[in-house]
Amino acid sequence: MSDLTEGLIALAGRSADIIPSRAVLFARLSLLDWMTCGIAGRNEPLAQKLRQLAQMEGGTGHSTIICGSASPARMAALANGATSHALDYDDTHFAHVGHLSVGIYPAALAIAEQQDLSAAEVMTAFLLGAEGAIRVGMALGRAHYNLGFHQTATAGAFGATLAAGRLLGLNDVQMRHALGLCGTRASGMTSQFGSMGKPYNAGIAAANGVECATLAHLGFTSADDGLLGHQGFVGAHIPSEARTDVDAGAGMQDAGMQDAGMQDAGMDDYLFPDNKYKLHACCHGLHPMIEALLAAHQMSGVTFDEISAFILETNPRWLAVCDIKAPRTGLEVKFSYNWLAGMTLRGDNTGDDRLYQDALAGDEELRAFANRITVIGNDALTDLQARGSLTMRDGSSLPIWFDLADPLAEDVIIAKLRAKSDTIIGEASAAIWDLYPRLQDLGARDIGHALSLGAGGTGRAELGVTS
Amino acid sequence: MSDLTEGLIALAGRSADIIPSRAVLFARLSLLDWMTCGIAGRNEPLAQKLRQLAQMEGGTGHSTIICGSASPARMAALANGATSHALDYDDTHFAHVGHLSVGIYPAALAIAEQQDLSAAEVMTAFLLGAEGAIRVGMALGRAHYNLGFHQTATAGAFGATLAAGRLLGLNDVQMRHALGLCGTRASGMTSQFGSMGKPYNAGIAAANGVECATLAHLGFTSADDGLLGHQGFVGAHIPSEARTDVDAGAGMQDAGMQDAGMQDAGMDDYLFPDNKYKLHACCHGLHPMIEALLAAHQMSGVTFDEISAFILETNPRWLAVCDIKAPRTGLEVKFSYNWLAGMTLRGDNTGDDRLYQDALAGDEELRAFANRITVIGNDALTDLQARGSLTMRDGSSLPIWFDLADPLAEDVIIAKLRAKSDTIIGEASAAIWDLYPRLQDLGARDIGHALSLGAGGTGRAELGVTS
Repeated sequence: MSDLTEGLIALAGRSADIIPSRAVLFARLSLLDWMTCGIAGRNEPLAQKLRQLAQMEGGTGHSTIICGSASPARMAALANGATSHALDYDDTHFAHVGHLSVGIYPAALAIAEQQDLSAAEVMTAFLLGAEGAIRVGMALGRAHYNLGFHQTATAGAFGATLAAGRLLGLNDVQMRHALGLCGTRASGMTSQFGSMGKPYNAGIAAANGVECATLAHLGFTSADDGLLGHQGFVGAHIPSEARTDVDAGAGMQDAGMQDAGMQDAGMDDYLFPDNKYKLHACCHGLHPMIEALLAAHQMSGVTFDEISAFILETNPRWLAVCDIKAPRTGLEVKFSYNWLAGMTLRGDNTGDDRLYQDALAGDEELRAFANRITVIGNDALTDLQARGSLTMRDGSSLPIWFDLADPLAEDVIIAKLRAKSDTIIGEASAAIWDLYPRLQDLGARDIGHALSLGAGGTGRAELGVTS
Repeated sequence: MSDLTEGLIALAGRSADIIPSRAVLFARLSLLDWMTCGIAGRNEPLAQKLRQLAQMEGGTGHSTIICGSASPARMAALANGATSHALDYDDTHFAHVGHLSVGIYPAALAIAEQQDLSAAEVMTAFLLGAEGAIRVGMALGRAHYNLGFHQTATAGAFGATLAAGRLLGLNDVQMRHALGLCGTRASGMTSQFGSMGKPYNAGIAAANGVECATLAHLGFTSADDGLLGHQGFVGAHIPSEARTDVDAGAGMQDAGMQDAGMQDAGMDDYLFPDNKYKLHACCHGLHPMIEALLAAHQMSGVTFDEISAFILETNPRWLAVCDIKAPRTGLEVKFSYNWLAGMTLRGDNTGDDRLYQDALAGDEELRAFANRITVIGNDALTDLQARGSLTMRDGSSLPIWFDLADPLAEDVIIAKLRAKSDTIIGEASAAIWDLYPRLQDLGARDIGHALSLGAGGTGRAELGVTS
């Protein structure tokens, strides 16, 4: 049996009492951010279609579908995972190489509602599931992602299984089977990016977690080590060249984890607090630049019109992702340093996803400003850092710098996440943030109730809630 | 767009009128054999657990679960796929490298019951789905299987999607999306062999097919070519060394298909009639030997006691699979040339899966006979062929030979499949074979009714029907 599988089983059984408060804080923040993204995504076509599927299938109303009817847990997890990832506005964990909340929270909440557990238990199960998913994501490594696999869906499913299994009270043997079944059930490809298939992947992770944990709870058996055993998930889902020195799983975990710096991060460390929240409704690669420009504006009062040139340095991997020089659509704007720099400096609310309409790509002021920008790759920067220099019309220059890895104070993060909620879900924001100080006293079903919008919030009323 | 994806879309829309009668015959035979295997598997623990899940979830009773309650189509497909593969007694398609009926029939039947279509439409959709799954299985090739993937689940899901999508009346654009979604949903590992995870894989294929086709029917979109496009399913699920000359899917289909002899088998040929039915409840690798020995007995009257030595030649790949010299359990007997040779020659009913109890591994007569057997690998034989020589106590010798690839006459196959049904499902055999001559006039719901055993058959009454 591999260390990884043993580690995940032990993680699933860890007492909530020994979890450090900063990790608990991040699980709480992620719950609110996940709820925000879920409610914001509710009118996306894919969310409506999944609610149609749920209605067609019917069944016992154990679990809440966001703005939908109560449904069996597997169905709720599928719908809520996809709905909350629909706007691509949810959190990112860079070491995991994916999005944790959208795969794991829907699974945890669906099972906790079914079992009538507390909100605190949901958050603990989510956190431990996320820690597990991060380890699986690191073992798979960037080579897995580059081969075409979407860690959000694949590694995420193991985290969802761990969380759902903990909430079902699986013992160690059952948890081993649940994770083993996940080894044959997990899937998800990056080829889907740009289609409804991408958010579907988050729903797949969540639904697979609920299914595998539930089957193990019913007594289903599986391979002993579906993750790193002979012909297990990890070995088959990374390129051959990443499998050097690996024979039938022996040494596999060492290989994968050394790649990912895993030897420095045992199961006792909490990696989830490295989680990054999206505060701007665009590609995460642009966020360090936006924050750097906002900081410069705040410090020096520099304005849009004063700037004659802007040189930006970024990690070279982003050049292939979000350096679209002349975007043609609103979606392409979300992947353009040139456009976002201008938008940030003239004070656009980059956190409002409705801002990114196709017309924005034709904005003449932004096009003119884009001509003053040079983007340079710099290997010395991490993919969370941005460095640059603003040259003023008077000839003076202003250096800018931001590192997303720098931790923010609790009140700063809360304020930013609350502002994001207010922007993208309107009235519903107050309804869910009212729960925040009371989370310890609430049940999972209270969270479900808030997501059903039965609590009174209506969010983007102008879009209408369709069901 | 790849030729394979285009071919699958065209296949899904093919008129039933132009399908040759031999292909139709095999779809009919497979329906009966699949029903037999499904009913025979109904009391296996995994089948009971899936019925528990279905009962827990409830929902609209669109589709029949074998010996269970009517359920939503996705749930019925999951339960019936796993239940019918539980005994590992279902059919095999060697070019596909997997089991077609258990992944595709449950999906086709579940959707056809939901839509109240005819049994004929179920069989046509199954056949076209199977032809599609064979092509996907061949494109993935044996390298996919050897890497740890189970074609029954992976390639099978595409066949299930095609069949379910045809029955939902998807147009070409929707079918492209359905297959694309399957590209991100399909999964299944061989590491599960020996656990409930193996039959689960067949259920996964069927449920994924229903889910992806249904979502496309509701308007879900996906990657344009989730199979062979950039970072599509095929490229990511074969070893790097099998991807030579492949760049972003270009030429991929050629590479994969040349490996599989695919250039000689276009979409217009029907490959499903190469399907092989299991008539003995043991590893398919043993079947050529068993048939060769049965033929020798039938021709010459040779009996168990007369034989002093038996030399068997078989394709070398089987030596790693089913050449257990001294089996220790009933399960290991299923993978032993030595044991099955003796059992066949003394007249045991090798078609009765209940025969393979652990006590059989301790049978002294079989052990003594096993000492007279030599098994030799011979590259010149296909994996469907067996050649050998029986030496009699009087010194004379008798050559034996069988090739499973030789087609059998319709009445011979029917008689053999009927005998298998009679053996493994008892009274229920008559109930389902009574339908055989009337299939053209029946509805999908009649098939479902027979599987619910509401039609009166009770099968292995001694085991009891649990729900």
